[in-house]
Amino acid sequence: MNDVTARKRGRPRRTESADTRDLILTAAREEFSERGYEKTSVRGIAKAAGVDSALVHHYFGTKEQVFEAAIEVAAAPALGAPDAVAEGPLEGVGERLTRYIFGVWENPATRTPLLAIVRSAVNNETAAAVFRRIVASQLLRRIAAQVDLPDAELRAELAAAQLVGTAMLRYVIKVEPLASADVEQIIARVAPVVQGHLTNP
Amino acid sequence: MNDVTARKRGRPRRTESADTRDLILTAAREEFSERGYEKTSVRGIAKAAGVDSALVHHYFGTKEQVFEAAIEVAAAPALGAPDAVAEGPLEGVGERLTRYIFGVWENPATRTPLLAIVRSAVNNETAAAVFRRIVASQLLRRIAAQVDLPDAELRAELAAAQLVGTAMLRYVIKVEPLASADVEQIIARVAPVVQGHLTNP
Repeated sequence: MNDVTARKRGRPRRTESADTRDLILTAAREEFSERGYEKTSVRGIAKAAGVDSALVHHYFGTKEQVFEAAIEVAAAPALGAPDAVAEGPLEGVGERLTRYIFGVWENPATRTPLLAIVRSAVNNETAAAVFRRIVASQLLRRIAAQVDLPDAELRAELAAAQLVGTAMLRYVIKVEPLASADVEQIIARVAPVVQGHLTNP
Repeated sequence: MNDVTARKRGRPRRTESADTRDLILTAAREEFSERGYEKTSVRGIAKAAGVDSALVHHYFGTKEQVFEAAIEVAAAPALGAPDAVAEGPLEGVGERLTRYIFGVWENPATRTPLLAIVRSAVNNETAAAVFRRIVASQLLRRIAAQVDLPDAELRAELAAAQLVGTAMLRYVIKVEPLASADVEQIIARVAPVVQGHLTNP
């Protein structure tokens, strides 16, 4: 086998493996959203992806690890806020963050996977642990790092609590008038609270 | 049958019926907490209570109605805040409400049934509708009625969102340092936010 053949054979194989990974992750996200963490199995994910269970274990490991990989992708729009949101100037961070989070929730394409994660995290300790790790490392710590106060992490969490609670009541429980209120009206009321938690002396 | 016999027979029967009702409600709360709304059946509740399914239907009606009755009892400590909490003077209502809600969550005896309700409401539309109806009628409307501003209900809901979100992150997702922080430290930060939502111009 000469170099050219090796390269030719090698390239599609790498692509194939990336495709298989994506295929498994998509199937995993669908299974976890539909059935919740507890009722989802590696075997079920493999079946939905049309691959062997051994391949799922090979790429990701345990069910918990598949879940972590699946929610990292699903949560990316909500948690991987652009640097400009989390790391811009401190004045206005409440407004930027609130606007960003409600942007994600208002968009059905990003809301659906997020809802699936929240449901799994509320119902299962392992899923809650994964959610906690990702939220903490990808969003809360980044914001807390900007706040030059001793209890920065607690502040970031209480700010997140206002956002999480508002999203729960508006998009999950659907309490009125909150569920139908104009999103700009909500941002106008929530942003100063988020800002206050982060920077009030 | 003379009057005395009728009364004698009538009294134990009334007691028995109240006991059976309680027995069914207790079994229902346990079933809903353990299995969640979807996987719980009237037949399963009847079996756990040691009665016939027909009796459950007789006392409560449909599964949704059993759920409503069960969570009204379970949520009573959280929602049926004493009049003094919801209806006292407006200054200080944020502090009274926050202190009351965290009191309920800090007590394992009232936290467990509350967690079960939250889990069911997050996972099932019917359960969410029942939760919404009870929270709205028993807590939010009472608080909103005290606030003499045009958007009183939205204000009450955003105040509730801060409380709900903080409880979620502390007791359900268990994000640190929030999960281990002293409850007085949390009340000190959350109460002014709740107050602000309700009364800031």
